[in-house]
Amino acid sequence: MATLELMRKLTTSGTTKIVLLVLDGLGGLPITPGGPTELEAAQRPNMNRLAAEGCVGLSVPVSLGVSPGSGPAHLALFGYDPIKFDIGRGVLEAFGIGVRVGPNDVAARGNFCTLGPDGNIADRRAGRIKSEAAAPLVARLAEIKIPGVDIEVQPVKEYRFVVVFRGEGLSAEVDETDPQKTGVPPMPALARTPAAQRTADIANEWIAEAHKALAGQPQANGLTLRGFSGDPNLPKYRDVYRLRAACTAVYPMYKGVSQLVGMDVQHFSGDSPANEFAHLKTIWNDYDFFFVHVKPTDSRGEDGDFDGKVKVIETVDAALPALLELKPDVLIITGDHSTPAKLRAHSWHPVPLLLWAPATHMRDAAQEFGERACITGGLGRFPATDLMPLALGHALRLERYGA
Amino acid sequence: MATLELMRKLTTSGTTKIVLLVLDGLGGLPITPGGPTELEAAQRPNMNRLAAEGCVGLSVPVSLGVSPGSGPAHLALFGYDPIKFDIGRGVLEAFGIGVRVGPNDVAARGNFCTLGPDGNIADRRAGRIKSEAAAPLVARLAEIKIPGVDIEVQPVKEYRFVVVFRGEGLSAEVDETDPQKTGVPPMPALARTPAAQRTADIANEWIAEAHKALAGQPQANGLTLRGFSGDPNLPKYRDVYRLRAACTAVYPMYKGVSQLVGMDVQHFSGDSPANEFAHLKTIWNDYDFFFVHVKPTDSRGEDGDFDGKVKVIETVDAALPALLELKPDVLIITGDHSTPAKLRAHSWHPVPLLLWAPATHMRDAAQEFGERACITGGLGRFPATDLMPLALGHALRLERYGA
Repeated sequence: MATLELMRKLTTSGTTKIVLLVLDGLGGLPITPGGPTELEAAQRPNMNRLAAEGCVGLSVPVSLGVSPGSGPAHLALFGYDPIKFDIGRGVLEAFGIGVRVGPNDVAARGNFCTLGPDGNIADRRAGRIKSEAAAPLVARLAEIKIPGVDIEVQPVKEYRFVVVFRGEGLSAEVDETDPQKTGVPPMPALARTPAAQRTADIANEWIAEAHKALAGQPQANGLTLRGFSGDPNLPKYRDVYRLRAACTAVYPMYKGVSQLVGMDVQHFSGDSPANEFAHLKTIWNDYDFFFVHVKPTDSRGEDGDFDGKVKVIETVDAALPALLELKPDVLIITGDHSTPAKLRAHSWHPVPLLLWAPATHMRDAAQEFGERACITGGLGRFPATDLMPLALGHALRLERYGA
Repeated sequence: MATLELMRKLTTSGTTKIVLLVLDGLGGLPITPGGPTELEAAQRPNMNRLAAEGCVGLSVPVSLGVSPGSGPAHLALFGYDPIKFDIGRGVLEAFGIGVRVGPNDVAARGNFCTLGPDGNIADRRAGRIKSEAAAPLVARLAEIKIPGVDIEVQPVKEYRFVVVFRGEGLSAEVDETDPQKTGVPPMPALARTPAAQRTADIANEWIAEAHKALAGQPQANGLTLRGFSGDPNLPKYRDVYRLRAACTAVYPMYKGVSQLVGMDVQHFSGDSPANEFAHLKTIWNDYDFFFVHVKPTDSRGEDGDFDGKVKVIETVDAALPALLELKPDVLIITGDHSTPAKLRAHSWHPVPLLLWAPATHMRDAAQEFGERACITGGLGRFPATDLMPLALGHALRLERYGA
């Protein structure tokens, strides 16, 4: 596997343009034995033409059998080993709702819980309290002040919220307070290193104030904090790949992960693939690499909505001509992971991938873009972390290794 | 991936014969959309028969997307991880022109440059001075004496030359003197470790004398030294694989790399594949492993000469019956990397590989030897460093791992 260190040595500047179009959760499964997957069922004349002209394969996001979350799956697509570069849950949760986590910040994911009269946890998720009921409680927590730090608290969904501590000298080396079982009280936040003691003290002080603010609530009268984490300091695209990279996405989390690797997050009107491609046209001369994210393939998959997922793929396909008019040198169409409607969840199945680079690709026998065609595709089956080296190679942006 | 340490444990002696026939830069690309590659276009009845009887696959020289130089690509074919075993540029350049680099030697690649009146580099390649103009300057450099070391200086091509320092106690841990930009003077040779100080002093003394010898030259009035490197002390074939190995090659560089892994470099008359195969017959009983190198596939590829590369492949195919008459137990036909005429350069595309071992191979569905047939071949796609274990396995020269 090519490492970031090797890429840093070999990447060279160039004028070629690379587009990475990610249909989130693209990979699927047939819902009837012998039937097509969502991708195979879609009317997708443009993708099929590109597959026939170019080459296809399957990418493995983390490792065989392992279903990734969106964070690690995107890191892998971007070339960062998701096992090595572990973005904390607190940071991911903050990104998911558009809350910034800067270099001096520590984020944690919060869960409301129900405490019994003995102070022990009776329900770790506060009876899955509704979002509307949780919102005013989160607002109360947001009013808590601790000297020396700024604190932001934002609701996520139901019993989940995010808290971000901001200030000098904070450390994410703090253990979670969730005992992961009922019948015992929440644990105190414990520092893993001496440097994290102040952060742990601040967290405990905040938790004590929060418990006072929640006293008397029927469901959410307590809370736990998990996944203390800070800016993971990822290497940046411009340094590792010498690419000026732009992110065109609608959902906050994907903007957040892109920002972590140094992409410029774009603002544009509308939220359809056609809107995204139209925006690319306006920034085409300003960047070398364009990450375009399409979310609803994953959402429909998680809903178990096979036909809905098919329709999203068809929408993307119908919009593709506008993207192709820009004449990218390398166009990759893939997913970050599979989300088969049949499973209503992210899955481990390798992800169909199409690479079209007319100046450099090896045309294979594939005549369409689909899971089964990808099995025997010319790119074979490879770790998702090898995609960026493949893209850079096909864009003639890598120097020869050795003489 | 099988490591050299594992091979050292498992290899056993035997009487089987392995031939590794490398057509340098074999892998290609179609020059017309939907057309054949160079290999697919060639009349190759013998290769096709062997592919139909045996099995095929694709090898990845360094990693996906990365185009290797010939040095690392051959190391990989020989089973040595080319990232771990990095042969320096000085040594490779010396090998390329047949200059020996022994255990006490340090080689560096030299570049003539043009210095302005201020002593700053005005042209890093001395206006790409012609080889004929450079030769007498190299001859002057070869006359420089430094007490305590023997020094060999040889021209390579245009502005490039090689200098080898020979003596006790030298070290290659010396930084290059090329600042990699113009407008600044060449840097002094700096020792990276205290043990390399004497070598750095010798290099600086030699550079000072060289600059005196070049004073007044219109183009090449200065020089830089790069890639200080010594014998990389690679494990040897006889120790790791228990193989008596012979190298049959025409170009110096391939003889050099083979020598580094302990192969006996052969002398023979002529320079055609037929000459090489005829020589094998004369040494057939003396060795277990025969590395046969054919260079012009790569040269024609770098020339952008699609038809010329096709013809070289056809020449090899026509000569194959003489090789087959020797009845090798394992015959591998592959390249060290791809050199598509379309790209006029080494490329990252996986390399077609044919393995024919009538006593042990698993026949696959391939009916011909070509890039597209190899995509679905029985050997799959594998790192080039796994080729030697595969060859040894098929030659029944590896013991079982574990009970």
